[in-house]
Amino acid sequence: MAHGMDSEFVTHFGGIRDGQLAIVLYPEFTLLDVFGPHHMFISLMGERTHLVAKTKDAVISDSGVSIIPQLTFDECPEDLLVLCIPGGSSGTLSAMEDADTLEFVRSRGQKAQWVASVCTGSLILGAAGLLSGYRATSHWAARDLLSEFGATPVNERVVVDRNRITGAGVTAGLDAGLEIVARLRGTVYAEGVQLLSEYDPQPGFAAGTPEKSSPETARLLRGMYEPFIDQARQAIARVRSGG
Amino acid sequence: MAHGMDSEFVTHFGGIRDGQLAIVLYPEFTLLDVFGPHHMFISLMGERTHLVAKTKDAVISDSGVSIIPQLTFDECPEDLLVLCIPGGSSGTLSAMEDADTLEFVRSRGQKAQWVASVCTGSLILGAAGLLSGYRATSHWAARDLLSEFGATPVNERVVVDRNRITGAGVTAGLDAGLEIVARLRGTVYAEGVQLLSEYDPQPGFAAGTPEKSSPETARLLRGMYEPFIDQARQAIARVRSGG
Repeated sequence: MAHGMDSEFVTHFGGIRDGQLAIVLYPEFTLLDVFGPHHMFISLMGERTHLVAKTKDAVISDSGVSIIPQLTFDECPEDLLVLCIPGGSSGTLSAMEDADTLEFVRSRGQKAQWVASVCTGSLILGAAGLLSGYRATSHWAARDLLSEFGATPVNERVVVDRNRITGAGVTAGLDAGLEIVARLRGTVYAEGVQLLSEYDPQPGFAAGTPEKSSPETARLLRGMYEPFIDQARQAIARVRSGG
Repeated sequence: MAHGMDSEFVTHFGGIRDGQLAIVLYPEFTLLDVFGPHHMFISLMGERTHLVAKTKDAVISDSGVSIIPQLTFDECPEDLLVLCIPGGSSGTLSAMEDADTLEFVRSRGQKAQWVASVCTGSLILGAAGLLSGYRATSHWAARDLLSEFGATPVNERVVVDRNRITGAGVTAGLDAGLEIVARLRGTVYAEGVQLLSEYDPQPGFAAGTPEKSSPETARLLRGMYEPFIDQARQAIARVRSGG
């Protein structure tokens, strides 16, 4: 169950506001990076949350599932309450080098009340020049790359520095999304959203970070990401030399 | 970052298997109920996970975002490793009374190795006769309704009874999905999936259940769900008298 049940919750906790939130889709984005924060945002019943892409054509995720965007870059409001960028792997590197995508993220990000990312989405924020001088995070395998964009990589799940809110890998989008709700509407409202989505997480295992997982699992997965990190370093070098 | 990086992880931890997993889409399903477990499943790189619906037309979720299904009910394999049903609110009640949907869930559910649900998806499993005599859960607001289908409602986040795995509200789909991965592939593999998705949840607040939230927030949200619960009771009565 999601939202829109009736208006008592909104009326009681915060009233209707007029702002709009946007989450960017690009080819081979990761679905859960979008729909974690999206779920938290849509409970902000007074605002509208849009999935925004270059065109209205269905956008294929890195799982092969396609999503239909709701607004094009051109149709997206100029002044956003929140601009949020999901992550991915090679598709994220392509988006990082795509002029239209970068220009959209840069222009909306400069004006947005909050600029957010989940997972490697922070690489796109970095490429758009929006993280220079900020503390920020990313997926654990990619976090250190943020220093290439003048950011200070931080090993925390959700990093807030002024109006930038960056989340760690994939599932951190739920925590970042809830944090954004709290910043927009206050703690009591955020707790209501948390109860609505029954967000009382209880993973059956405790291997969610390299520090907490077994050394062997961490070693194997680090090795698996090495080709991606190499590709990312090359893409970042191209972005920096072009910019 | 999601999956498909390369095969060392699969080779090392479990090898390729031949089975298939299906998550059912129906009008007004809740997106995160699908994409929580979906993210955990797609890391099972040896298997294929399908989003299945009555037709290949885009299916609208309860947030207004549309998703394109990958297989129709007719195209879905007969013998599934996992059949998983997401929740929603009024759309879930309509699906519960839809003959084609119930017949699909019943026929695939009787043969599936694991039968799973997230949130109010358990009402559909109940209507299909798949929870009679089983311990099960649902979104906290709807959990007690499961007794109407001969199930024993349990106040736990993920309930496993023989081959039935039911999750609590919305976000419990991540925990249920990870549990299913562990049952299919073992603990070490599940820990790898957890690290891949950096699933080390840290919600900024502790209001994820009615017992943990403030009494006032719980009271307001319970009140908000009352019309849905009334509608659900009526729909369940119709399902039971027709069945």
